[in-house]
Amino acid sequence: MGYELHYWPMIQGRGEFVRLALEQGGADYVDVAREPSEDGGGIDAMVARMSGESGSENFRPPFAPPFLVDGDLVIGQTANILLYLGPRLGLVGTSEADRIWTHQIQLTIADVVLEAHDTHHPIAVMDYYEEQRPEAAKRARDFRENRMPKYLGWFERVLARNPAGSGRLVGDAVSYADLSLFQLVDGLRYAFPKASERVLAGTPRLTALVQNVGRLPRIAAYLASERRIAFNEQGIFRRYPELDG
Amino acid sequence: MGYELHYWPMIQGRGEFVRLALEQGGADYVDVAREPSEDGGGIDAMVARMSGESGSENFRPPFAPPFLVDGDLVIGQTANILLYLGPRLGLVGTSEADRIWTHQIQLTIADVVLEAHDTHHPIAVMDYYEEQRPEAAKRARDFRENRMPKYLGWFERVLARNPAGSGRLVGDAVSYADLSLFQLVDGLRYAFPKASERVLAGTPRLTALVQNVGRLPRIAAYLASERRIAFNEQGIFRRYPELDG
Repeated sequence: MGYELHYWPMIQGRGEFVRLALEQGGADYVDVAREPSEDGGGIDAMVARMSGESGSENFRPPFAPPFLVDGDLVIGQTANILLYLGPRLGLVGTSEADRIWTHQIQLTIADVVLEAHDTHHPIAVMDYYEEQRPEAAKRARDFRENRMPKYLGWFERVLARNPAGSGRLVGDAVSYADLSLFQLVDGLRYAFPKASERVLAGTPRLTALVQNVGRLPRIAAYLASERRIAFNEQGIFRRYPELDG
Repeated sequence: MGYELHYWPMIQGRGEFVRLALEQGGADYVDVAREPSEDGGGIDAMVARMSGESGSENFRPPFAPPFLVDGDLVIGQTANILLYLGPRLGLVGTSEADRIWTHQIQLTIADVVLEAHDTHHPIAVMDYYEEQRPEAAKRARDFRENRMPKYLGWFERVLARNPAGSGRLVGDAVSYADLSLFQLVDGLRYAFPKASERVLAGTPRLTALVQNVGRLPRIAAYLASERRIAFNEQGIFRRYPELDG
Protein backbone atom coordinates (compact mmCIF):
# COMPACT_ATOMS: atom_id res chain seq x y z
CA MET A 1 0.00 0.00 0.00
CA GLY A 2 1.31 3.43 -0.90
CA TYR A 3 1.48 6.65 1.05
CA GLU A 4 -1.49 8.95 1.53
CA LEU A 5 -0.70 12.65 1.43
CA HIS A 6 -3.39 14.87 2.92
CA TYR A 7 -3.31 18.54 2.00
CA TRP A 8 -5.49 21.35 0.68
CA PRO A 9 -6.17 20.54 -2.97
CA MET A 10 -6.19 24.07 -4.38
CA ILE A 11 -2.71 25.24 -3.41
CA GLN A 12 0.92 24.17 -3.43
CA GLY A 13 1.37 25.40 0.12
CA ARG A 14 3.38 23.32 2.56
CA GLY A 15 2.14 20.15 0.91
CA GLU A 16 4.35 20.91 -2.08
CA PHE A 17 7.53 20.20 -0.11
CA VAL A 18 6.20 16.70 0.50
CA ARG A 19 4.94 16.25 -3.06
CA LEU A 20 8.39 17.05 -4.47
CA ALA A 21 10.01 14.45 -2.22
CA LEU A 22 7.43 11.80 -3.13
CA GLU A 23 7.87 12.56 -6.83
CA GLN A 24 11.67 12.54 -6.78
CA GLY A 25 11.64 9.38 -4.67
CA GLY A 26 9.38 7.64 -7.16
CA ALA A 27 6.94 6.87 -4.36
CA ASP A 28 3.56 5.26 -4.76
CA TYR A 29 1.23 7.86 -3.26
CA VAL A 30 -2.26 9.31 -3.40
CA ASP A 31 -2.92 13.02 -2.94
CA VAL A 32 -6.15 12.27 -1.10
CA ALA A 33 -7.96 15.61 -1.08
CA ARG A 34 -7.45 15.93 -4.84
CA GLU A 35 -9.16 12.63 -5.57
CA PRO A 36 -12.91 12.53 -6.34
CA SER A 37 -15.10 12.13 -3.28
CA GLU A 38 -16.71 9.05 -4.84
CA ASP A 39 -13.27 7.44 -4.63
CA GLY A 40 -12.85 8.37 -0.96
CA GLY A 41 -11.09 11.65 -1.72
CA GLY A 42 -11.88 15.33 -1.31
CA ILE A 43 -11.43 17.78 1.54
CA ASP A 44 -14.07 15.96 3.59
CA ALA A 45 -11.96 12.82 3.59
CA MET A 46 -8.94 14.83 4.76
CA VAL A 47 -10.89 16.53 7.53
CA ALA A 48 -12.36 13.22 8.70
CA ARG A 49 -8.88 11.75 8.85
CA MET A 50 -7.48 14.73 10.75
CA SER A 51 -10.29 14.71 13.29
CA GLY A 52 -9.78 11.02 13.98
CA GLU A 53 -13.26 10.04 12.74
CA SER A 54 -11.80 7.72 10.14
CA GLY A 55 -8.73 6.64 12.10
CA SER A 56 -7.96 4.00 14.70
CA GLU A 57 -8.37 4.20 18.48
CA ASN A 58 -4.74 5.15 18.99
CA PHE A 59 -4.85 7.87 16.38
CA ARG A 60 -2.43 10.75 16.98
CA PRO A 61 -4.02 13.91 15.62
CA PRO A 62 -1.89 16.29 13.55
CA PHE A 63 -2.36 19.98 14.29
CA ALA A 64 -2.87 20.89 10.63
CA PRO A 65 -2.31 19.64 7.06
CA PRO A 66 -0.10 18.49 5.49
CA PHE A 67 0.00 15.07 7.04
CA LEU A 68 1.12 11.74 5.69
CA VAL A 69 -0.53 8.40 6.33
CA ASP A 70 1.70 5.34 6.11
CA GLY A 71 -0.24 2.30 7.29
CA ASP A 72 -1.12 2.96 10.93
CA LEU A 73 1.12 5.99 11.22
CA VAL A 74 -0.23 9.52 10.80
CA ILE A 75 2.59 12.07 10.57
CA GLY A 76 2.18 15.84 10.65
CA GLN A 77 4.49 18.86 10.37
CA THR A 78 6.15 19.22 6.98
CA ALA A 79 9.76 18.92 8.16
CA ASN A 80 8.82 15.91 10.27
CA ILE A 81 7.22 14.20 7.28
CA LEU A 82 10.43 14.72 5.32
CA LEU A 83 12.50 13.45 8.24
CA TYR A 84 10.42 10.27 8.06
CA LEU A 85 10.41 9.94 4.28
CA GLY A 86 14.06 10.87 3.69
CA PRO A 87 15.64 7.48 4.45
CA ARG A 88 12.75 5.58 2.85
CA LEU A 89 12.99 7.48 -0.44
CA GLY A 90 16.78 7.69 -0.57
CA LEU A 91 16.65 11.46 -0.15
CA VAL A 92 19.07 11.85 2.76
CA GLY A 93 22.53 10.54 3.65
CA THR A 94 22.98 7.45 5.77
CA SER A 95 25.02 8.92 8.65
CA GLU A 96 23.36 10.55 11.64
CA ALA A 97 25.54 13.61 11.06
CA ASP A 98 24.19 14.03 7.53
CA ARG A 99 20.62 13.40 8.62
CA ILE A 100 20.69 15.91 11.44
CA TRP A 101 22.35 18.51 9.20
CA THR A 102 19.83 17.97 6.40
CA HIS A 103 17.01 18.36 8.92
CA GLN A 104 18.58 21.52 10.33
CA ILE A 105 18.62 23.02 6.83
CA GLN A 106 15.02 21.91 6.31
CA LEU A 107 13.90 23.63 9.52
CA THR A 108 15.61 26.82 8.39
CA ILE A 109 13.78 26.58 5.06
CA ALA A 110 10.55 26.20 7.06
CA ASP A 111 11.39 29.41 8.93
CA VAL A 112 11.73 31.33 5.66
CA VAL A 113 8.50 29.83 4.34
CA LEU A 114 6.62 31.09 7.40
CA GLU A 115 8.17 34.54 7.12
CA ALA A 116 7.23 34.67 3.43
CA HIS A 117 3.67 33.79 4.42
CA ASP A 118 3.60 36.45 7.11
CA THR A 119 4.46 39.18 4.59
CA HIS A 120 0.81 39.04 3.51
CA HIS A 121 -0.55 37.95 6.89
CA PRO A 122 1.43 39.83 9.54
CA ILE A 123 -1.51 40.30 11.92
CA ALA A 124 -4.01 37.44 11.74
CA VAL A 125 -3.77 34.26 9.71
CA MET A 126 -7.54 33.79 9.47
CA ASP A 127 -8.27 37.33 8.27
CA TYR A 128 -8.00 38.43 4.65
CA TYR A 129 -4.91 40.08 3.25
CA GLU A 130 -7.09 43.08 2.41
CA GLU A 131 -7.69 43.58 6.15
CA GLN A 132 -3.97 43.89 6.92
CA ARG A 133 -2.49 45.65 3.91
CA PRO A 134 -0.66 48.52 5.62
CA GLU A 135 1.02 46.13 8.06
CA ALA A 136 1.79 43.75 5.19
CA ALA A 137 3.57 46.50 3.30
CA LYS A 138 5.84 47.14 6.28
CA ARG A 139 6.56 43.51 6.96
CA ALA A 140 7.21 42.75 3.29
CA ARG A 141 9.74 45.56 3.15
CA ASP A 142 11.66 44.11 6.08
CA PHE A 143 11.47 40.67 4.49
CA ARG A 144 12.83 41.92 1.15
CA GLU A 145 15.55 44.11 2.59
CA ASN A 146 16.74 42.16 5.60
CA ARG A 147 15.39 38.65 5.96
CA MET A 148 15.59 37.35 2.40
CA PRO A 149 19.24 38.40 1.92
CA LYS A 150 20.17 36.96 5.30
CA TYR A 151 18.52 33.58 4.69
CA LEU A 152 19.54 33.16 1.05
CA GLY A 153 23.07 34.22 1.98
CA TRP A 154 23.14 31.43 4.53
CA PHE A 155 22.06 28.83 1.96
CA GLU A 156 24.79 30.12 -0.37
CA ARG A 157 27.31 29.70 2.42
CA VAL A 158 26.12 26.16 3.12
CA LEU A 159 26.57 25.29 -0.57
CA ALA A 160 30.01 26.90 -0.64
CA ARG A 161 31.13 24.97 2.43
CA ASN A 162 29.92 21.54 1.27
CA PRO A 163 33.26 19.74 1.04
CA ALA A 164 31.85 17.50 -1.70
CA GLY A 165 31.63 20.56 -3.97
CA SER A 166 28.65 18.86 -5.56
CA GLY A 167 26.28 21.78 -5.90
CA ARG A 168 24.00 19.94 -3.45
CA LEU A 169 23.41 21.09 0.11
CA VAL A 170 24.65 17.92 1.80
CA GLY A 171 27.20 15.49 0.37
CA ASP A 172 26.98 14.31 -3.24
CA ALA A 173 23.39 13.25 -3.68
CA VAL A 174 20.04 15.00 -3.96
CA SER A 175 18.36 15.38 -0.56
CA TYR A 176 14.87 16.46 0.37
CA ALA A 177 16.41 19.76 1.48
CA ASP A 178 17.61 20.44 -2.08
CA LEU A 179 14.06 19.88 -3.33
CA SER A 180 12.62 22.14 -0.64
CA LEU A 181 15.13 24.87 -1.36
CA PHE A 182 14.13 24.71 -5.02
CA GLN A 183 10.50 25.15 -3.99
CA LEU A 184 11.32 28.03 -1.66
CA VAL A 185 13.19 29.95 -4.35
CA ASP A 186 10.52 29.17 -6.94
CA GLY A 187 7.96 30.64 -4.57
CA LEU A 188 10.04 33.70 -3.78
CA ARG A 189 10.48 34.34 -7.50
CA TYR A 190 6.73 34.15 -7.96
CA ALA A 191 5.87 36.39 -5.01
CA PHE A 192 8.75 38.86 -5.16
CA PRO A 193 10.08 38.81 -8.74
CA LYS A 194 12.09 42.00 -8.36
CA ALA A 195 13.46 41.52 -4.87
CA SER A 196 14.32 37.86 -5.35
CA GLU A 197 16.27 38.43 -8.57
CA ARG A 198 18.21 41.20 -6.83
CA VAL A 199 19.17 38.87 -3.98
CA LEU A 200 19.78 35.84 -6.22
CA ALA A 201 22.23 37.89 -8.30
CA GLY A 202 24.54 37.56 -5.31
CA THR A 203 24.00 33.84 -4.69
CA PRO A 204 25.27 32.00 -7.79
CA ARG A 205 25.50 28.59 -6.12
CA LEU A 206 21.91 28.80 -4.95
CA THR A 207 20.77 29.90 -8.40
CA ALA A 208 22.56 26.93 -9.94
CA LEU A 209 21.06 24.50 -7.42
CA VAL A 210 17.55 25.68 -8.25
CA GLN A 211 18.20 25.27 -11.97
CA ASN A 212 19.68 21.80 -11.49
CA VAL A 213 16.84 20.56 -9.30
CA GLY A 214 14.31 21.80 -11.87
CA ARG A 215 16.09 19.68 -14.48
CA LEU A 216 16.06 16.42 -12.55
CA PRO A 217 14.03 14.16 -14.86
CA ARG A 218 11.38 13.24 -12.30
CA ILE A 219 11.04 16.81 -11.03
CA ALA A 220 10.88 18.22 -14.56
CA ALA A 221 8.18 15.68 -15.48
CA TYR A 222 6.23 16.53 -12.34
CA LEU A 223 6.46 20.29 -12.92
CA ALA A 224 5.15 19.80 -16.47
CA SER A 225 2.28 17.57 -15.32
CA GLU A 226 -1.16 18.53 -14.14
CA ARG A 227 -0.21 17.27 -10.69
CA ARG A 228 1.71 20.54 -10.22
CA ILE A 229 -0.78 23.16 -9.08
CA ALA A 230 0.04 26.67 -10.31
CA PHE A 231 1.03 29.36 -7.82
CA ASN A 232 -1.95 31.48 -6.85
CA GLU A 233 -3.11 34.03 -4.31
CA GLN A 234 -4.54 31.49 -1.87
CA GLY A 235 -1.16 29.91 -1.18
CA ILE A 236 1.91 30.83 0.84
CA PHE A 237 3.67 32.66 -2.00
CA ARG A 238 1.36 35.32 -3.41
CA ARG A 239 2.06 37.85 -6.11
CA TYR A 240 0.88 41.14 -4.74
CA PRO A 241 2.93 43.69 -6.73
CA GLU A 242 2.64 46.24 -3.92
CA LEU A 243 4.63 43.90 -1.65
CA ASP A 244 7.54 43.58 -4.09
CA GLY A 245 10.05 46.26 -5.01
CA MET B 1 33.77 15.51 27.21
CA GLY B 2 30.39 17.07 27.83
CA TYR B 3 28.06 19.01 25.60
CA GLU B 4 28.55 22.68 24.80
CA LEU B 5 25.37 24.74 24.58
CA HIS B 6 25.76 28.07 22.79
CA TYR B 7 23.07 30.66 23.37
CA TRP B 8 22.58 34.30 24.33
CA PRO B 9 23.48 34.54 28.02
CA MET B 10 20.95 37.18 29.10
CA ILE B 11 17.70 35.44 28.16
CA GLN B 12 15.90 32.12 28.42
CA GLY B 13 14.87 32.33 24.78
CA ARG B 14 15.01 29.24 22.62
CA GLY B 15 18.06 28.03 24.52
CA GLU B 16 15.85 27.29 27.51
CA PHE B 17 14.17 24.36 25.75
CA VAL B 18 17.61 22.79 25.39
CA ARG B 19 18.67 23.70 28.93
CA LEU B 20 15.63 21.96 30.39
CA ALA B 21 16.40 18.77 28.47
CA LEU B 22 20.06 18.82 29.51
CA GLU B 23 19.06 19.37 33.14
CA GLN B 24 16.39 16.67 33.25
CA GLY B 25 18.73 14.29 31.42
CA GLY B 26 21.47 14.90 33.99
CA ALA B 27 23.84 15.82 31.17
CA ASP B 28 27.35 17.12 31.59
CA TYR B 29 27.23 20.46 29.76
CA VAL B 30 28.65 23.95 29.64
CA ASP B 31 26.50 26.97 28.81
CA VAL B 32 29.38 28.55 26.91
CA ALA B 33 28.32 32.17 26.53
CA ARG B 34 27.58 32.40 30.25
CA GLU B 35 31.09 31.34 31.21
CA PRO B 36 33.76 33.99 31.84
CA SER B 37 35.71 34.98 28.77
CA GLU B 38 38.99 34.12 30.52
CA ASP B 39 37.70 30.53 30.60
CA GLY B 40 36.89 30.55 26.88
CA GLY B 41 33.31 31.68 27.40
CA GLY B 42 31.27 34.77 26.61
CA ILE B 43 29.34 35.90 23.58
CA ASP B 44 32.56 36.32 21.60
CA ALA B 45 33.27 32.61 21.97
CA MET B 46 29.79 31.77 20.74
CA VAL B 47 30.06 34.08 17.75
CA ALA B 48 33.49 32.71 16.83
CA ARG B 49 32.07 29.19 16.96
CA MET B 50 29.06 30.12 14.85
CA SER B 51 31.15 31.86 12.22
CA GLY B 52 33.43 28.86 11.90
CA GLU B 53 36.51 30.74 13.08
CA SER B 54 37.02 28.32 15.95
CA GLY B 55 35.71 25.21 14.21
CA SER B 56 37.13 22.57 11.90
CA GLU B 57 37.42 22.65 8.09
CA ASN B 58 34.22 20.71 7.65
CA PHE B 59 32.27 22.95 9.99
CA ARG B 60 28.56 23.18 9.22
CA PRO B 61 27.39 26.65 10.21
CA PRO B 62 24.12 27.01 12.14
CA PHE B 63 21.88 29.87 11.05
CA ALA B 64 21.45 31.21 14.58
CA PRO B 65 21.79 30.26 18.26
CA PRO B 66 21.00 28.05 20.04
CA PHE B 67 23.40 25.42 18.80
CA LEU B 68 24.89 22.42 20.49
CA VAL B 69 28.44 21.18 20.10
CA ASP B 70 29.04 17.47 20.69
CA GLY B 71 32.59 16.62 19.73
CA ASP B 72 32.89 17.37 16.01
CA LEU B 73 29.17 17.87 15.52
CA VAL B 74 27.61 21.34 15.56
CA ILE B 75 23.82 21.15 15.65
CA GLY B 76 21.45 24.08 15.22
CA GLN B 77 17.67 24.59 15.32
CA THR B 78 16.10 24.00 18.72
CA ALA B 79 13.82 21.12 17.71
CA ASN B 80 16.68 19.47 15.85
CA ILE B 81 18.92 19.69 18.92
CA LEU B 82 16.20 17.98 20.95
CA LEU B 83 15.74 15.34 18.25
CA TYR B 84 19.45 14.60 18.63
CA LEU B 85 19.55 14.72 22.43
CA GLY B 86 16.30 12.86 23.07
CA PRO B 87 17.60 9.28 22.69
CA ARG B 88 20.92 10.14 24.37
CA LEU B 89 19.29 11.61 27.45
CA GLY B 90 16.45 9.10 27.71
CA LEU B 91 13.89 11.79 26.93
CA VAL B 92 12.03 10.08 24.09
CA GLY B 93 10.54 6.66 23.46
CA THR B 94 12.50 3.97 21.65
CA SER B 95 10.12 3.28 18.74
CA GLU B 96 10.26 5.32 15.55
CA ALA B 97 6.53 5.98 15.91
CA ASP B 98 7.06 7.55 19.34
CA ARG B 99 10.06 9.55 18.18
CA ILE B 100 8.35 10.99 15.14
CA TRP B 101 5.26 11.85 17.20
CA THR B 102 7.31 13.51 19.93
CA HIS B 103 9.12 15.54 17.28
CA GLN B 104 5.83 16.52 15.66
CA ILE B 105 4.61 17.87 18.98
CA GLN B 106 7.92 19.69 19.48
CA LEU B 107 7.62 21.38 16.08
CA THR B 108 4.12 22.52 16.98
CA ILE B 109 5.45 23.95 20.25
CA ALA B 110 8.08 25.78 18.16
CA ASP B 111 5.29 27.26 16.04
CA VAL B 112 3.56 28.68 19.13
CA VAL B 113 6.87 30.04 20.45
CA LEU B 114 7.42 31.95 17.22
CA GLU B 115 3.88 33.30 17.25
CA ALA B 116 4.32 34.41 20.87
CA HIS B 117 7.49 36.21 19.82
CA ASP B 118 5.76 37.88 16.90
CA THR B 119 3.12 39.40 19.18
CA HIS B 120 5.75 41.99 20.14
CA HIS B 121 7.62 41.89 16.83
CA PRO B 122 5.00 41.56 14.08
CA ILE B 123 6.83 43.75 11.55
CA ALA B 124 10.62 43.52 11.91
CA VAL B 125 12.61 41.30 14.22
CA MET B 126 15.59 43.67 14.36
CA ASP B 127 13.57 46.78 15.20
CA TYR B 128 12.46 47.68 18.72
CA TYR B 129 9.05 46.79 20.07
CA GLU B 130 8.46 50.50 20.54
CA GLU B 131 8.66 50.94 16.77
CA GLN B 132 5.84 48.45 16.10
CA ARG B 133 3.46 48.93 18.99
CA PRO B 134 0.18 49.49 17.09
CA GLU B 135 0.78 46.41 14.97
CA ALA B 136 1.82 44.44 18.06
CA ALA B 137 -1.47 45.30 19.76
CA LYS B 138 -3.41 43.87 16.82
CA ARG B 139 -1.32 40.75 16.49
CA ALA B 140 -1.39 40.09 20.25
CA ARG B 141 -5.16 40.30 20.22
CA ASP B 142 -5.40 37.64 17.52
CA PHE B 143 -2.89 35.52 19.40
CA ARG B 144 -4.85 35.74 22.66
CA GLU B 145 -8.28 35.23 21.13
CA ASN B 146 -7.62 32.72 18.38
CA ARG B 147 -4.17 31.19 18.28
CA MET B 148 -3.54 30.46 21.97
CA PRO B 149 -6.87 28.67 22.47
CA LYS B 150 -6.38 26.68 19.27
CA TYR B 151 -2.85 25.55 20.14
CA LEU B 152 -3.42 24.88 23.84
CA GLY B 153 -6.61 23.05 22.95
CA TRP B 154 -4.60 20.78 20.67
CA PHE B 155 -2.10 19.96 23.42
CA GLU B 156 -5.03 19.16 25.73
CA ARG B 157 -6.42 16.83 23.09
CA VAL B 158 -3.05 15.12 22.68
CA LEU B 159 -2.89 14.53 26.44
CA ALA B 160 -6.47 13.23 26.51
CA ARG B 161 -5.76 10.82 23.66
CA ASN B 162 -2.55 9.37 25.07
CA PRO B 163 -3.64 5.76 25.61
CA ALA B 164 -1.17 5.43 28.48
CA GLY B 165 -3.25 7.95 30.44
CA SER B 166 -0.02 9.00 32.08
CA GLY B 167 -0.41 12.75 32.06
CA ARG B 168 2.60 12.85 29.71
CA LEU B 169 2.34 13.75 26.04
CA VAL B 170 3.76 10.48 24.70
CA GLY B 171 3.63 7.12 26.45
CA ASP B 172 4.47 6.77 30.13
CA ALA B 173 7.74 8.61 30.53
CA VAL B 174 8.85 12.23 30.53
CA SER B 175 9.91 13.37 27.05
CA TYR B 176 11.64 16.52 25.88
CA ALA B 177 8.27 17.64 24.52
CA ASP B 178 6.81 17.58 28.06
CA LEU B 179 9.65 19.81 29.22
CA SER B 180 9.19 22.18 26.28
CA LEU B 181 5.45 22.38 26.84
CA PHE B 182 6.13 23.31 30.46
CA GLN B 183 8.43 26.10 29.26
CA LEU B 184 5.91 27.32 26.70
CA VAL B 185 3.13 27.58 29.26
CA ASP B 186 5.46 29.16 31.81
CA GLY B 187 6.34 31.78 29.22
CA LEU B 188 2.73 32.40 28.23
CA ARG B 189 1.82 32.87 31.87
CA TYR B 190 4.59 35.43 32.21
CA ALA B 191 3.73 37.35 29.05
CA PHE B 192 -0.05 37.04 29.08
CA PRO B 193 -1.09 36.40 32.70
CA LYS B 194 -4.76 37.20 32.10
CA ALA B 195 -5.26 35.57 28.73
CA SER B 196 -3.29 32.44 29.57
CA GLU B 197 -5.21 31.76 32.79
CA ARG B 198 -8.45 32.17 30.88
CA VAL B 199 -7.39 29.60 28.30
CA LEU B 200 -5.77 27.25 30.82
CA ALA B 201 -9.01 27.13 32.79
CA GLY B 202 -10.30 24.99 29.93
CA THR B 203 -7.26 22.71 29.65
CA PRO B 204 -6.98 20.81 32.96
CA ARG B 205 -4.68 18.11 31.61
CA LEU B 206 -2.26 20.68 30.30
CA THR B 207 -2.34 22.58 33.59
CA ALA B 208 -1.57 19.37 35.46
CA LEU B 209 1.30 18.50 33.12
CA VAL B 210 2.90 21.88 33.71
CA GLN B 211 2.60 21.47 37.47
CA ASN B 212 4.01 17.96 37.37
CA VAL B 213 6.99 18.88 35.20
CA GLY B 214 7.80 21.77 37.53
CA ARG B 215 7.94 19.27 40.41
CA LEU B 216 10.34 16.82 38.78
CA PRO B 217 13.27 16.89 41.21
CA ARG B 218 15.89 17.88 38.66
CA ILE B 219 13.67 20.51 37.06
CA ALA B 220 12.65 21.94 40.42
CA ALA B 221 16.31 22.14 41.45
CA TYR B 222 17.21 23.83 38.19
CA LEU B 223 14.39 26.37 38.43
CA ALA B 224 15.51 27.28 41.95
CA SER B 225 19.15 27.64 40.90
CA GLU B 226 20.93 30.65 39.51
CA ARG B 227 21.30 28.75 36.24
CA ARG B 228 17.66 29.65 35.53
CA ILE B 229 17.60 33.14 34.06
CA ALA B 230 14.49 35.14 34.99
CA PHE B 231 11.98 36.08 32.30
CA ASN B 232 12.65 39.59 31.02
CA GLU B 233 11.77 41.98 28.23
CA GLN B 234 14.66 40.98 25.98
CA GLY B 235 13.40 37.42 25.57
CA ILE B 236 10.68 35.70 23.60
CA PHE B 237 8.04 35.99 26.31
CA ARG B 238 7.73 39.63 27.38
CA ARG B 239 5.36 41.15 29.87
CA TYR B 240 3.91 44.18 28.15
CA PRO B 241 0.57 44.68 29.97
CA GLU B 242 -0.91 46.43 26.93
CA LEU B 243 -0.57 43.18 24.97
CA ASP B 244 -2.49 41.12 27.53
CA GLY B 245 -6.19 41.30 28.27
